[in-house]
Amino acid sequence: MAEALTGFRPGRRTPAETISVGEALRRVPARPVTAPHPLPGFARSTVDGYAVRAADTYGVSEGLPGYLTVTGAVLMGTEPDIGVAPGCAMSMPTGGALPRGADAVVMIEYTAETMPGTIEVVRPVAPGDGMVRADEDARIGQEIIPDGRVLRPQDLGMLAAAGVTSVRVQVRPVVTIFSTGDEVVPPETQALKPGQVRDATAAALAALVEDAGGTPVLGGIIPDDPAALEEALRAALESSDVIVISAGSSVGARDETATAVARLGAPGIWCHGLAIKPGKPTLLAECGGVPVIGLPGNPRSALVVFRLIGMPVIRQVGGCTVPPPEPSARARLSRDLASATGRLDVVQVKVSEGMATPVFGLSALLSVLTAADGYIVIPEEATGLDAGTEVDVTLYA
Amino acid sequence: MAEALTGFRPGRRTPAETISVGEALRRVPARPVTAPHPLPGFARSTVDGYAVRAADTYGVSEGLPGYLTVTGAVLMGTEPDIGVAPGCAMSMPTGGALPRGADAVVMIEYTAETMPGTIEVVRPVAPGDGMVRADEDARIGQEIIPDGRVLRPQDLGMLAAAGVTSVRVQVRPVVTIFSTGDEVVPPETQALKPGQVRDATAAALAALVEDAGGTPVLGGIIPDDPAALEEALRAALESSDVIVISAGSSVGARDETATAVARLGAPGIWCHGLAIKPGKPTLLAECGGVPVIGLPGNPRSALVVFRLIGMPVIRQVGGCTVPPPEPSARARLSRDLASATGRLDVVQVKVSEGMATPVFGLSALLSVLTAADGYIVIPEEATGLDAGTEVDVTLYA
Repeated sequence: MAEALTGFRPGRRTPAETISVGEALRRVPARPVTAPHPLPGFARSTVDGYAVRAADTYGVSEGLPGYLTVTGAVLMGTEPDIGVAPGCAMSMPTGGALPRGADAVVMIEYTAETMPGTIEVVRPVAPGDGMVRADEDARIGQEIIPDGRVLRPQDLGMLAAAGVTSVRVQVRPVVTIFSTGDEVVPPETQALKPGQVRDATAAALAALVEDAGGTPVLGGIIPDDPAALEEALRAALESSDVIVISAGSSVGARDETATAVARLGAPGIWCHGLAIKPGKPTLLAECGGVPVIGLPGNPRSALVVFRLIGMPVIRQVGGCTVPPPEPSARARLSRDLASATGRLDVVQVKVSEGMATPVFGLSALLSVLTAADGYIVIPEEATGLDAGTEVDVTLYA
Repeated sequence: MAEALTGFRPGRRTPAETISVGEALRRVPARPVTAPHPLPGFARSTVDGYAVRAADTYGVSEGLPGYLTVTGAVLMGTEPDIGVAPGCAMSMPTGGALPRGADAVVMIEYTAETMPGTIEVVRPVAPGDGMVRADEDARIGQEIIPDGRVLRPQDLGMLAAAGVTSVRVQVRPVVTIFSTGDEVVPPETQALKPGQVRDATAAALAALVEDAGGTPVLGGIIPDDPAALEEALRAALESSDVIVISAGSSVGARDETATAVARLGAPGIWCHGLAIKPGKPTLLAECGGVPVIGLPGNPRSALVVFRLIGMPVIRQVGGCTVPPPEPSARARLSRDLASATGRLDVVQVKVSEGMATPVFGLSALLSVLTAADGYIVIPEEATGLDAGTEVDVTLYA
């Protein structure tokens, strides 16, 4: 929603690399993967029972069983060395390879060994019953995994089944994260001087970058000095696919960030200021082919905006065209919520027993985010929501 | 739902370890984290404007402004060296430390510099307006992060803000995964002999173990030999928090698995056979304090059961008492679905435009899982669902 609002669609894409399937969970295939072999590769029983010629069972019933001569037993993992002739059957484990001549498997429940070497069959089978064809899971050359969607556990299983051991994926976007502000000090600083704050945003942004499939690089804390910021950004342009700046919180610091970004190169600033609360002072730019995202100064606003706008940009740069589904819940609002028309409002909520209760607090407070189970978005055309309204909550995983 | 069905609640828990916050994304705190310092630690402006004594603004309006003497400017990251006396004000950036004497900040929009050193104020403020208190985000000793819930990006931000650099978390459960079956060969095997299949399950299970917060260990492929299986399991008991076996697919192989597990130790097998489709032959046991999960032989059934029953066990062993929310969607069924009463049915579906379309295919087919966007669970008391019924789809992330 916020993403659509901005219309910000940088063209940068990471290149492809080849990695082993064992490392490929949640990576994005750069091209569809096709089956190098048919799967399962041989006609295979799906039940315990007897491989038969289906025609030999036509018309049998409990009252009028058919009788077949058992000529052998198929062993798991081996090719049956004899076939099934008319009037004959071979015992089959689930997963065994069908012998030549057989075209169906009768479940053991519908057979009985009436005397050694002979079974009676009390239900007819059609050709194909109790088995899968040699290419029923995949034909040779068939697309088994699409590009642009992250690899899920079952996709890795399918690749293993197909004998695919490496996969061509997009390189993870390198996302350099800068913090700015004379007041900001590293998180490991124990004794703060009055007026100083520890850098909360960089650690949280790094985690969100990972969640979006990127590789975070902490660029450190830059003082409120446009020349120093410009120099740091320029160096990062060389090594980054995306640059994220948690801008200073004051108007002056925000202006300095915009000035530094504007000097970085064409096409430059896409927009500065979004109709989102919290998140108004967001800056979006593209400099020398690198998307640059300037976030609001306070950590909570920065994280809200980064989820809505930054993570989609990282996914896009990383070739993920089918964003993974997010956890969500339908719930009823516990109270009226006001909202200004023409502005997207992001409201943090706790969810319990189908009820979404807003967590209020100034946008400077990080505790509002840690107390929340998720958030709701009040669209720009709405003037507010009444208590009892059913809302979609995006849940934090 | 399936989890509740089994009532399987092994008591094993991993111990705690201390790790750095930078490595702690999605890890489970072993105890609540409390704030070692008040946050933000000083009274802080939340707007650009002027620090004032609120009483000096009472009664002012556009028609009758108040006038204050500007005695200085607060700089970011520093302690103001002078205070705000009655009738005075200091200019403040957002995020700056409030000077002594001041108890509110007037937004710059409601002020004007009428002559050098003097501002007029056209709106009154109450004490606390335009600022946060020194302990408004967290009081010293207050719980800022609960135990038992995975650390989310914003939680890492809160820890950084609080100057917490390491955190006590549960050790990830070590989950050893065995594949069994004479027909099963490693995924890297290119040319299969007829009757052989590549091990698809182990790779997919390893990914699901990671998703559940565990450390997967691939125990390899064990032939259908109860003595070999028992020996491998016994060795794994020493080094594992959970053992998972994708059992052979035939009845014989399943019996062999049960026999081997039964010999491992007390209290032994909890149940063998679940009222779940697919997944009936699932075996749950606890041997020498280690939960042991025997999965159905075919990969698709194994993955369905492992999601429903195995992942909750791993989370529980890893101390995760608040399972993370899963992606889901409400959708309408595209067609009637039959289901036997007394059995939980798991049906794979594709979801498009609010419609859930079942992906049918034999339980032996892995392609059904890779084609699906998620699954629906038909509860055991239902006899089926009509087309058009609204269903909850759990989506694959």
